This record gives sequence, structure tokens and C-alpha cells, in this order.
Amino acid sequence: MTIEASAGTVLGRRIRLGMVGGGQGAFIGAVHRIAARLDDHYELVAGALSSDPGRARESAAALHIAPDRAYADFREMAEREAARPDGIDVVAVVTPNHMHAAPVRAFAGRGIHVICDKPLAHSVEDAEAMAAAVREAGILFALTHNYTGTPMVRQAREMVAAGELGTLRVVQVEYPQDWLTTPLEGSGQKQAAWRTDPSRSGAAGSVGDIGTHAFNLAEFVTGLRCESLCAELSRFVPGRALDDNAHMLLRFAGGARGMLWCSQVAPGHENGLRLRIYGDRGGLEWAQEQPNNLLHTPYGEPPRLLRRGGPAMLPGAARGVRIPAGHPEGYLEAFAQLYRDVAEQITARLERRSADAASLLVPGLEEGLRGMHFIAAAVESARRDAAWVAVGT
Amino acid sequence: MTIEASAGTVLGRRIRLGMVGGGQGAFIGAVHRIAARLDDHYELVAGALSSDPGRARESAAALHIAPDRAYADFREMAEREAARPDGIDVVAVVTPNHMHAAPVRAFAGRGIHVICDKPLAHSVEDAEAMAAAVREAGILFALTHNYTGTPMVRQAREMVAAGELGTLRVVQVEYPQDWLTTPLEGSGQKQAAWRTDPSRSGAAGSVGDIGTHAFNLAEFVTGLRCESLCAELSRFVPGRALDDNAHMLLRFAGGARGMLWCSQVAPGHENGLRLRIYGDRGGLEWAQEQPNNLLHTPYGEPPRLLRRGGPAMLPGAARGVRIPAGHPEGYLEAFAQLYRDVAEQITARLERRSADAASLLVPGLEEGLRGMHFIAAAVESARRDAAWVAVGT
Amino acid sequence: MTIEASAGTVLGRRIRLGMVGGGQGAFIGAVHRIAARLDDHYELVAGALSSDPGRARESAAALHIAPDRAYADFREMAEREAARPDGIDVVAVVTPNHMHAAPVRAFAGRGIHVICDKPLAHSVEDAEAMAAAVREAGILFALTHNYTGTPMVRQAREMVAAGELGTLRVVQVEYPQDWLTTPLEGSGQKQAAWRTDPSRSGAAGSVGDIGTHAFNLAEFVTGLRCESLCAELSRFVPGRALDDNAHMLLRFAGGARGMLWCSQVAPGHENGLRLRIYGDRGGLEWAQEQPNNLLHTPYGEPPRLLRRGGPAMLPGAARGVRIPAGHPEGYLEAFAQLYRDVAEQITARLERRSADAASLLVPGLEEGLRGMHFIAAAVESARRDAAWVAVGT
Amino acid sequence: MTIEASAGTVLGRRIRLGMVGGGQGAFIGAVHRIAARLDDHYELVAGALSSDPGRARESAAALHIAPDRAYADFREMAEREAARPDGIDVVAVVTPNHMHAAPVRAFAGRGIHVICDKPLAHSVEDAEAMAAAVREAGILFALTHNYTGTPMVRQAREMVAAGELGTLRVVQVEYPQDWLTTPLEGSGQKQAAWRTDPSRSGAAGSVGDIGTHAFNLAEFVTGLRCESLCAELSRFVPGRALDDNAHMLLRFAGGARGMLWCSQVAPGHENGLRLRIYGDRGGLEWAQEQPNNLLHTPYGEPPRLLRRGGPAMLPGAARGVRIPAGHPEGYLEAFAQLYRDVAEQITARLERRSADAASLLVPGLEEGLRGMHFIAAAVESARRDAAWVAVGT
Repeated sequence: MTIEASAGTVLGRRIRLGMVGGGQGAFIGAVHRIAARLDDHYELVAGALSSDPGRARESAAALHIAPDRAYADFREMAEREAARPDGIDVVAVVTPNHMHAAPVRAFAGRGIHVICDKPLAHSVEDAEAMAAAVREAGILFALTHNYTGTPMVRQAREMVAAGELGTLRVVQVEYPQDWLTTPLEGSGQKQAAWRTDPSRSGAAGSVGDIGTHAFNLAEFVTGLRCESLCAELSRFVPGRALDDNAHMLLRFAGGARGMLWCSQVAPGHENGLRLRIYGDRGGLEWAQEQPNNLLHTPYGEPPRLLRRGGPAMLPGAARGVRIPAGHPEGYLEAFAQLYRDVAEQITARLERRSADAASLLVPGLEEGLRGMHFIAAAVESARRDAAWVAVGT
Repeated sequence: MTIEASAGTVLGRRIRLGMVGGGQGAFIGAVHRIAARLDDHYELVAGALSSDPGRARESAAALHIAPDRAYADFREMAEREAARPDGIDVVAVVTPNHMHAAPVRAFAGRGIHVICDKPLAHSVEDAEAMAAAVREAGILFALTHNYTGTPMVRQAREMVAAGELGTLRVVQVEYPQDWLTTPLEGSGQKQAAWRTDPSRSGAAGSVGDIGTHAFNLAEFVTGLRCESLCAELSRFVPGRALDDNAHMLLRFAGGARGMLWCSQVAPGHENGLRLRIYGDRGGLEWAQEQPNNLLHTPYGEPPRLLRRGGPAMLPGAARGVRIPAGHPEGYLEAFAQLYRDVAEQITARLERRSADAASLLVPGLEEGLRGMHFIAAAVESARRDAAWVAVGT
Repeated sequence: MTIEASAGTVLGRRIRLGMVGGGQGAFIGAVHRIAARLDDHYELVAGALSSDPGRARESAAALHIAPDRAYADFREMAEREAARPDGIDVVAVVTPNHMHAAPVRAFAGRGIHVICDKPLAHSVEDAEAMAAAVREAGILFALTHNYTGTPMVRQAREMVAAGELGTLRVVQVEYPQDWLTTPLEGSGQKQAAWRTDPSRSGAAGSVGDIGTHAFNLAEFVTGLRCESLCAELSRFVPGRALDDNAHMLLRFAGGARGMLWCSQVAPGHENGLRLRIYGDRGGLEWAQEQPNNLLHTPYGEPPRLLRRGGPAMLPGAARGVRIPAGHPEGYLEAFAQLYRDVAEQITARLERRSADAASLLVPGLEEGLRGMHFIAAAVESARRDAAWVAVGT
Repeated sequence: MTIEASAGTVLGRRIRLGMVGGGQGAFIGAVHRIAARLDDHYELVAGALSSDPGRARESAAALHIAPDRAYADFREMAEREAARPDGIDVVAVVTPNHMHAAPVRAFAGRGIHVICDKPLAHSVEDAEAMAAAVREAGILFALTHNYTGTPMVRQAREMVAAGELGTLRVVQVEYPQDWLTTPLEGSGQKQAAWRTDPSRSGAAGSVGDIGTHAFNLAEFVTGLRCESLCAELSRFVPGRALDDNAHMLLRFAGGARGMLWCSQVAPGHENGLRLRIYGDRGGLEWAQEQPNNLLHTPYGEPPRLLRRGGPAMLPGAARGVRIPAGHPEGYLEAFAQLYRDVAEQITARLERRSADAASLLVPGLEEGLRGMHFIAAAVESARRDAAWVAVGT
């Protein structure tokens, strides 16, 4: 258990963080900021928080960002920050999906590391262009599939990798929510508006917003590649332009079979991401709303409740535990773990050493591209009446 | 709440029950007998409990059946019982699937009512022949999809019918077990042996044994007809002849969409039948292992925990409650409810009156045929690489 | 797993059961009858179901009791049944508390075995007189502390006895209900009326009705004797004559310490009997409303969920499992276990052999007297402002 | 929902925080620091983190505290910080119990606000001296009974205050843990060593460490004053100097009755603080390990699951919600709420306005003194064989 990590300390200073998007009224930007602060490895020193200059300025002031580092344009920010001796080390891109590619390319082009919200981009094409730019620049790129930062998710991954479940057979993943049960986007609610708008969200609605988390979680924990899928996408709310519910059959390399359900119209579910996997030696179940627990069901034995910080934690998972067992950690702490891991990676680069291997679990380009191919395959399968479609590479 | 119902009383005697199958070592036969005894409407007076004469005789003696009514042959039993003035009113057929059709036809042909275990038969053809015989005879026919006897399942059905969920959109049903995780059939375990043997079980394994329960439950509660499905059937245990896991996409009349998962290789799950349904006004969740609870999630309000015998019970559900709230009822009590309802129907016939409408909820021929068409569609879809296949009528 | 036990079979006939009390409208009488029927070891052949002759007759007819064995007076019943060659083997006494002693003495005096509802009697004096009569007669006497019939309760007892928890330190037992939150007795509700009436219930209300179950459960599972207690008894509903809530500190022989809470005014609790015990090696938790589960918390290891019929069942507990794991059994099945055990004991006597040792777990006189002393101690302690009072022997 | 509050913003700068105690290896100091950072209202600028000068210096450096503000002596720190124009606004005192009084008096004497860990002090005498000093200085004083910062705890308090439960009758509070099941203090574990040492912890062990939280929570939510108690304190681990388990009966003003159980020897419990309260109109249940949920059981209606951020949140509780429903917040977020509320109070003072009334819920001197009187009463009652002892004022 490490309440406060030491990466920033070795460096002798906090990592300098900038942000694109996340101005007043945004949701995920504030989450990124808390995540960055939690373990004290970062200071937020610059931002292009809004494309509206006034809003950008006010948002920056409220966050104690110096006026000369409050930008209205991310290109200007990239240029000026790259030129400063105390310029930002890394930028967090927290705009809607269609506005990921341009900032990522701008900062990558200046050699500034990037933390980007998911899904990677608005389209596979955009995503691949981003990926090329990032690779060419040789920067660090992290994608905030935040659930992978949860200790018990990493525990699950380690247990699978250690063979505790035997050969995996069945993968059930679901992510139901209920917040779009009614046509909320018609009411002007900002989050609903852009997520249901193809021009900002991309070709998919629930599949892109939450299905990608489910897909990422399944591949992250199982270590298996989903090769193809059959998808049925539904738009249950009249007038909605993108799917608000999706049902899929999944085929994994090596023969495992699975299902994925994501929904934003399932009353009673707030944020019900849940993964259940079964091998010939046992099963595991993890649910995001009770993130401190992991149910392990070895075949032929009583189920065991593994708890964050409790007995049976494996090293990689234990590393992410800040406070003792029974003192619940939640969504923000898991999100912060990704920031902590990125801090270790950045520090290692600055110190010209190898990063702690465990910090490399943070999702990056590859996971981002997998997500984009997943979206594309789901949309294509649904268009073809749920035919099997390969998940591209 | 009615601890003991009055149907038998009005008749002035208990209903006379016979049984085919269910000799020593069988599982479901004993369950039927407890179900018949629980509410004291029946007495078991005759049986062809085994095709082995010695075993038939011994099994009968152990059940206090008179020696002259212990038969080794169900045809002889049908003939002789039909000829007795005190002959059986109804027979319970509790043999493996391939041995349902012949006894049902024999008893139906003698005008004796039938309670039959599920699935209806070994094949659609057998099932339709049985159905024709039953209809021609005009007898009562009940199929023990026992979960429909659970008060909270009936509560769910009534709530849906009353519109409490609004228009249904999503139906998630699953039935995981783990008892066939290993090749148990190779060990000589009797239940495993016949259930994994196509000659006794039919064209499907897990789909027939438990998938039919899941399918029946979904249609029973929602009142919706599943029109077509996409199925992926797996045989994970090497050498197994029938599916031990199945994943399906479902399309319901009226536009609802769903998924069905059944598995006998999911470690940690004992008997995990679970139904979750979502409409535009709310959702419901019921899980067989906690049968006294029903979670109701009206959209925009806190979830409500409905409990058997507690507040908010609707009349049809309340009728099946024997003991007060908080005193759990289980599997046997739900099974007994079907016997109680059949008793009411038989009594009503004998008394030449209409049966209590609520007693007519017991599944019968129609549900049995739906189940057979479901099995056939699943097998056909899987054969065609999970193509959509209509569920026949 | 034994779906149907063989005790009755060996005898060659069912045990003949009579009943005192339990006429139309009663609750616990019907429960006893279902419990007796469930495993098919008994037939109900005689009854003094009500002291009102008409109601006694009608109640008997509804239960298929022959008219000549429907009595209005339990003394007449005892006399006549004792005289018949086919007279009852055992009588179930299911009257309110103040009407236990007289029938028990009458039947015991005729050599007829007795199954009696709890608490044993209306007062310690009554109880001791009953006990003397029973001992003198040498009959079998069973007291239906029904929760001791639950497989997972017996599992807990066996685990404690085997030392799996080490030395016990802490015992937390509680039994909250909410049905007397309002002055229900004023509405004419029959169950509420007698339970809140000192002349029928005795010196205690909730303490006698449910506190005795909690106390019995704690001693049954731990095998420890509660030596003394401090009690605070409350009457929260205005005008109520007996306690509707009680809080107690408990001291056990050997140094364990505990608490007991029982309440009938705790909204939300239907029948919340729950026991938690902790030793220096681990803990156990069992809750009546989820009776198929037992949580085992070995110190320093992940908690394990033991399930009825699942892995890790000990022999004595496994013996009481009728249907497979995951097929829930409930209140009635546990109650029936006591009847099954009594059947074994009666059969063994008739066959002049020793009864199966496991069947001797059924509570009897000793447990009944403990319960009466517990009530007396609680009332006395409360009278003395929660002073420590020894629980007599 | 307010992800980031605005108090600091209005001030135009972050609040300057110092810390006494909390050097490397400490637990609660790090928690305070995360809590202070989470909402970005504070910057940690000074510390006397250890009485060992080297350790103080290193600990400060690791936290980016400037070397000239890294003190080895809290008195020097108070003096110098008071003299600086950019001196600290507030100090967090996070030393063991016996080291609260002196620093609090030192900083109070310099007019510096104080946030102090619980329990207030080592003894009632110390506590009263502190209280006098704080009152005389007129500073702000906050005591981190952190569970009062949880949104659902505040929701519970508001519901009670609004009369939703009617007149309260029963209060059940418990706080079991298992970390001292074995003689951990003998192994040199630092947390165990001081908590079981009367010279550092005070007259009580579990009662002071966690019993005070339970007591505070009960009074906070119910708004009732506990007038007297009966306590049984146990030392189960051989050689332990202070109680590791306590059982109490509680009497509240107005007639409510309750129980309190705290334990550090209850295997399976990590941090099991749980409160259940019952009035004549309904009940509430909250458990620290699932802090985002609150069960509301209105009498005669189905239980309702209230969820942080979900429907039915009252304004005071909603104010503490940072992220949407279903995205769990935990221990750190609740702790941070106290820091957020203190920030509002400090800012209001600096801005010469009234603080937001809701921010005044933070426990302070009065709650601290209640806790000390509770400890004293429990120890006294136990000494007198669980006699009733008044909880002083």
C-alpha cells in the first residue's frame, strides 16, 4: 500500500500538466484534474479550456492557471508551451471525440506527451492519422480507459495471466446505464447533446461511449483478442440518431465465446459496467459499482470474496492500493492510478531509466485503435443484420 | 396469503395422482412428489416408476403405493387405472425427454390428465404428435416450467401487464450453472449422462435443459413473443456431444431486443436463472437464487425492493404466498404452486365450474411447443453460423 | 443429499400424527402440517384443532381427518387416541403459549410423544411442571425452534465444534421484525392480539416470541452457555402491555461476550434473525432471510461463501439437504427437518434401535427450559434497570 | 453536483495549509493531504512532520515543502508561520492522541485555525484545556470525524431532521474490524503499537479509536443526545492493555434506545462501521463499506435504495456529490468534504461574510468533547460492571 507515490519526488518537481477542453460545465475535464492532483505528481499550469476566449480565460482563472498560460487556441498553446523552458511536460485532451485528433497531432508534433480521453477518435481514419503522428513523434500516449486503473481489475488480469482460471471459455461483459432513457438531448443537456450527435460522437452512440469501455475491459483482463462479433444496435428513443443499446456475440482467439451488452436506456442502472469470465478452473466477477470487490469462484470450492487491500492481493494490484482494506476507493482513485502510472513513465524518461513495468499497463494507442475497430465492426455488423464481422487491427 | 388452499376440500377428497418415471435415484420425480404433497391436494396412489420390474416394485413400496398399483409398464398402468373406479385423476410424467411422448399419448388416450416435465419432448415431431393427442383427448396438460410458479415471477408478469414498465425495450435473460464444467458424464453420474446424450436429450444440451427455462421465463413475464434469434452454441468440454454453453440475440414482436445466455460450464454458478427487463418507464430484475425478492426500478426514482408477502404485492402473486414475508419460500414451494393450480383446474372440471382464472397460468402445450421451436431455432441458427432464424409456431 | 428420507419406509407405514390447536385462521398449525407432510413420514389422522366444537369439526374436515377423530377437547383426544389400536404416535401442540402445558401433560400421561411449539410455556413454573411430566412419562419431546433445522445452521454448529473458528470471543445475535410498528393488536389481528397479551403470551412480548429464537440459535451454534445478561426492555407503541424491543448484553461461559437485539418495531425488517460469531481463528455469519448461505471468514484469508449443497458441506449439514445447490430451500424445509428428525427418533423407538445421532439435534426440554429461564432473566434484569442477572438452569 | 467548488476561487488563492505529524510511514497524515488536495482549495506549504529533524526534513522535501518551512518543532512552526506574511491559514494536527493538545494550543494561541484528527485528546482534562484555548482564541476548529462528510450520511441526517422516520425509537450502531485479532502490537507494527498503548492512546483502545466514530455517527445522524450507557469492555488478546472489543446499551434523550458494538477482533470485518435507525414511520441503514448507498425503509412500503447522486437526494447531501451516480466515491472523497467545508468557512472569514450554512456540519469542539465524555463513560461503566453511567457534557 502506497498512499503517496514517489515518482514526482525523484524528479524533484511536479510534472507540468496542460489541458485542452474541460472548461466550466464540462464533466470529464474536472475528473482528469482531480485524478492528476490526487497523488500530487502534477501541477496544472496551462490550458486551452474552451474555444471561447472569455470562457477559456475564466475557466483558467478559476483553476489558478496564470493568465499568460490561458489559451483560447490549442495550436497556440502547443507552440508557446513548447517554447517555454518551464513548458508543460504533458497535455490532457478532454474534448468531445471529434476534437481529439487535431490537438493530439499538434502537441505530438511539438514533442509534448499526451493523455487523451476515450474513445480515441471520431473515426478509424482520424484515429490512424493520430496514431501515425504519435508514433512519429515518439511521445508517450495514454488513453484513459480508467477502469483499467482499478486495483481489483488489475488483480483479475494478473490472476488470469497466472492461470488461476485455466483456459478461458466464456466472457460476459455488460455496461448498462439509464440516463438516456428519455430524449434528454432534446432538453439541451450538454453531455447528452454531443454524445447523441454523429458529427461530434462518431458513427456510434452507446457503443462508442460505453461499449468501448466494456470491450477494453474484456480484452484487458482476459488478455484475449476479440476476433469477430455479431451486433444488433438499437435506437429505442424516438428521433435519436445513434444507438442507445447494443447486443453483441463475441468470438475470441483461442476459442472463448462471449457477449457484450451496453445500454443507456436500462432504468435502474447508473453505471453498471460488469465483467464475468469463466475458465475450466474457475471464474471471476467484477462490477464497477462495487469496485473494491472481486469474486473468485474456483471450480469445486466455495466462492471467495477478494477485497482491495485484503488477503490474496497480487503485487501489481497491491501497488495501486492507497488506503487500507475496508476504506473504499472509487472512480476517482482508479482514474488517478492512470495519472500515477503516466507520471512514472514520464519521470523515467526524464531520468533516462526504464519505467516500472507495472506502470506500462496504462492503455495507449493500441488499445485506442482496438476500440475504434470495435466500433467500426459493430456498426458494420448491425448494418448487415448482425452478420459476423472481423474486428480489424 | 393462503397457507393451505381449499380446492381439494371442495372436492371432498384428495386428487389421485400416478407417476411415470421417478424411481429410486431419480431427481425430478421426488421433486414432483414433494410438490404434490406440499399443499395436500393429492395422494400418490399408482406408479410405473421404473421400466425395471424389481425397481418399480421397490420404489413403489417405499412410497406407500399399494402393490397392485405398482406397474412396470406405463401402458398397462394407463389401461388399468382408467378401468378402476378409484383410478388416478392425473399422471405425472417425469422420465427423460425421449420418454415423454409415449406415456403422454397413452394416458391422454385414456382421458387421464397429464403433468409433464420439461422440455416437452425429444424433438419437434414428437412434440407435435403429443400435442395432437392431447388436444384430441381434451385432457388437461401441464408442463412444469416451475419458475412460473414463483410468486415474484407472477408479480413481475402482472406488473408488466399493468404497464408499470411502459413499453418494453430490452430483455436480458441468463441461466448459468457449473455442474458440467468437467466431463461428469464420463463418471457415470446419471443426471449428466442422459442430459449430454442426444438419443435421450434431443438435439440440444444446455439449450434444452435450461435454455428452455430461460426462454419460457422471458416470454412468460414479458408477455412478448420472441420472433427470431441468432445463436452460437458451444461444446467446451472435450468429447461432449451436445452444447454446454449458448449465446443468443433475441428479437421480440413489437421491437424489444434481448439476449439469452445459458451455460453449464460457468464456475461459481449453481442455478443462476436471472431475468432483467427494461421498458421506457422502468425495469425489473428477478434472480432464481433469491426468489423472494424482485427489484423494481421505476425510471427517475430510487429502486424498490419488492418482497414476497410484503407491500405492493399484486393479487395474482399474493395468491401464491403461503407464509409471511421474511420467511423464505424456495424452489419446492414454487413447484408446488403449479400442482396447486392444476388441482384447482382438475377440481373445477370435476365440479363442472370454471377454474379460478389465476390457476390457468400454469404452462401447457403451447409453452411446450414454443420451447421445442426455440430449441430447433437455436440449433438451426448455430448450424448456420448464428444467422437469424425464426422461432416457429 | 436425500430428497426423501427412509425412516417411514423402514417402519412400513407413516407415523400417525395428531394436532392440538391450529384450526382455521391459525398460522403456525398450518406450518407444522406442511412440515409433517413434506418428507412423507406422517399422516395427520386426529385433531383437537379448536376449543369451539363447530370450528374444530370444520377444520378437521378440511384436513381430511375422519369425523370420529375430530375432537373439541384435547383431554378426550388423548384418552381416546391412546385407547385405539391405530391411535396417534405423536401429537403436535400448536396453541398459544399459555395453552401448552395442559395438553402436553395430557398426552405425555398417555405415553404419546409430543412436538410442541416454542416458547415452552407461559411461565417457568408451568414449564417445569411440563418437564417433570414429560420426564416421568419417558416420551419423546421436541420443541420447534425451527431455525435449528436449517442445513447452514447445522453447518455452522459443526464448524464451531470442529474448532474452525478457534476460541469464540464475540457473539452477535439479532432478530428484528416490523410487524408491530403500529398498534396492530388494537385492530383485532389475531396473531398480534395474543402475542401482546400477558395472559396468553407470558411475562414477555418480543423477548418470548422471537428473542427466544435468537437465544436458542446462539447457544445451538456456539455450543456455549449464556451465563448472565443485562437487559433493557422497551414498549415503544403506546398502550402496549409487553416489550416490543429488547437490547441485551450477554456473558457466556468461557469468556465470550455478546449482544442480543430483538424488535418488532424495526421498519424494513420482515424476519431478520441473524447470527454472527467470531473466534480467534475466524468468523461466521448466517441470516435467516438468506438461509442457503453461510459466510465464513477465516482470519487472514478472503471470506468464503458456503452454500447449501455446495462444496465444503459437513456431513451433519449435508444430511438435511433435499435439492441441489442453487435450488433454494426455505423456512418450511427447515421446519420439516425437525419433523424428519423426530420421525427417525420415533421409528427407532418402535424398531427398538438407536436413532441416528444426527437426528438428536432437535431441541427438546432442555432447550425449552433454557428459553424460559432466558425470558425470566431478561424480565428481571429490565426490572432492575439492566443489572446483570444469571440465566437459571 | 459540483465537481470542483469555488471557495478558493473567490479568495483568489488557495488556502495555505500546514501539518503537524504525518511524516513518512504515517497513515492518517497522507489521508489528510489527499483530502486537502482533492478539491484544490489548499496548498501544503509548511510542516512539522516529525519530531526527528532528519525525518521531518526528508518528509517535507518529498511533499515539495520549501526547506525553510520544514520544522522539527511545532512550537517553532507556530511562531514562525504566524510571523510570515504568507504564513499558513490553517494547520492539520495528525499526531497520535496524546500529542493533540499541545500543538492545538500552540497554533490556537497564534490565531491559526486548526483541523485535528480524532479523538480530540488523550483525556477529558486535556480535551477541556484544548477547548478553552480554542474558544479563547476564537479560531476555527474542525475535528475529522470523516464519515460525517459522506453524502449519504448527510442525506440520512437531513431525512431524520425532516421527520421522514417519525419519532426515533431504536439506534443500532456498530464498528467491527479485525486487524487486531492477533497481538499485532507485539510485531512492531506502528499503527497497532500506539493504539494499544495507554500512554499514547488514552484510557480506551477500540472505544477511542473506532467507538468514537460510531458514537459520533449515531448522534450526528439522529440529532439525539445519548444520555447514558452501560458498557462491557473486553481485552480478548492476551497481554493487551486496552479494550479490543466493547458492547454497550445506549439511552437517548427523548426515549430512543440503542446499542453500540465496536471490535478490532472480529475476523472478516475490515472497516464495518454501520448505522441502522428506526422510527415509527420508517428506518434507515448505512454501511461505510458501501458508502454510496442508503437504504430507506418507510413502514408499510417496499424498501428504497437511495444512491449518491441519484433520485431523492436532499440539497445538503447533493452539495457533496462530485461525480455522477454510479461512479463510486469513497473514503477519501468523504474526508475531502470536511476539508472543502473548512475551506468555505475560512474563506468566509477572510471575506467577512457568513459561511454557507451547510459547511457548518463539520464536527468541531463540541463533538470532540462528546467523544471524550463517551470514552470516559464507557470506561467508568465497564469498571462498575456495566452500570449505567451518564455521558457528561
